[in-house]
Amino acid sequence: MRIGVLGTGIAGRTIATKLIQLGHEVQLGSRTADNEAALAWADANGDSAGAGTFADVAAAAELVFNCTAGGASVEVLRAAGADNLEGKVLVDVSNPLDFSTGQLLLTVSNADSVGEQLQAAAPAARVVKALNTVNCQVMVQPSLVPGEHSVFVCGNDEAAKRQVIDLLGAFGWPAERVIDLGDITGSRATEMYLPLWVRLMGRLGTPLFNVVPVQAP
Amino acid sequence: MRIGVLGTGIAGRTIATKLIQLGHEVQLGSRTADNEAALAWADANGDSAGAGTFADVAAAAELVFNCTAGGASVEVLRAAGADNLEGKVLVDVSNPLDFSTGQLLLTVSNADSVGEQLQAAAPAARVVKALNTVNCQVMVQPSLVPGEHSVFVCGNDEAAKRQVIDLLGAFGWPAERVIDLGDITGSRATEMYLPLWVRLMGRLGTPLFNVVPVQAP
Repeated sequence: MRIGVLGTGIAGRTIATKLIQLGHEVQLGSRTADNEAALAWADANGDSAGAGTFADVAAAAELVFNCTAGGASVEVLRAAGADNLEGKVLVDVSNPLDFSTGQLLLTVSNADSVGEQLQAAAPAARVVKALNTVNCQVMVQPSLVPGEHSVFVCGNDEAAKRQVIDLLGAFGWPAERVIDLGDITGSRATEMYLPLWVRLMGRLGTPLFNVVPVQAP
Repeated sequence: MRIGVLGTGIAGRTIATKLIQLGHEVQLGSRTADNEAALAWADANGDSAGAGTFADVAAAAELVFNCTAGGASVEVLRAAGADNLEGKVLVDVSNPLDFSTGQLLLTVSNADSVGEQLQAAAPAARVVKALNTVNCQVMVQPSLVPGEHSVFVCGNDEAAKRQVIDLLGAFGWPAERVIDLGDITGSRATEMYLPLWVRLMGRLGTPLFNVVPVQAP
């Protein structure tokens, strides 16, 4: 499949590389066509790897990952062009983290979320929030962490969620460990989990962790 | 120990009953001295159980639990009287849930939390946020849920946290399953987890669940 990955940070490059390993054609998107990180990634990842502007990448792709910082994601989507995303699955793995004040704040929370903002900005895209509750290394290699730990998906389009769940299966997440939280407003829940995630990372001393849901028999 | 429990809802009564079973003297506090739920609870729980106004209960107690709705907790604390809490451990198990609009919102989040609001409203109290990430039945009987699942504490006073961790041990939480998230601003993290908790409850079909943190070796 032709997949576009918006964002050249560690999350974007990690996911893009995994998608190449899975046999997909992957373009890494950034603000400008001459982004050094994107070009270096494309050079290092063979003939199936490319780079371009957000709009180039969105237009060429059949499915798009948003791996930009949550606080910038709506602006990135506008640069990518809502028209270029029409009918396409947009997998949003972003989190609206803002450390600029010296403490962790979310740029959006409670009655709204990045997932919802993206769906509102591109109504014809099929946004699926996924994977944002784990570190990007765990996203693409869940076996780094022991146990039957889970990730979450949510979105308004059932077929889009099924497609993302299949893709997560290729990443190493069995379907029974992918919990569907419902419509795209579930993004509030998974994004608002991040303050706890960040505290836990500090307490556990590693970003390579996750949680296993357990329930009464 | 003489313990005051503010709030006569299911969480307050469940915790108060557990404390009676553990041999403590417990008073259940409410807005008025003739609260029927509080008087019925006191009648049913023997000579060590009593009831009174928030202020009566706070004044008599050595340690106080806040089990009121998070959106009302600061007002309850004012009724209890900050002076009556001076030097005392205040265990805050509340969550700022607001379902009044038909969707879940938090009455406070992101840059503030109920735990911090209580600490600010009673600077001489020693607030410890605890247990608010599990259902009240799980709070007092963690063995209802299988596995090495965890709860969190946070607060500015180390001795107060140790005392609460000891009390949680009596509830059935081994110290190694109580994760200290740091100062009272950690309340933001555990309170903002609630939207995910509520979605998970819907998905799992039971409030009797929790999460086990797992990490890379």
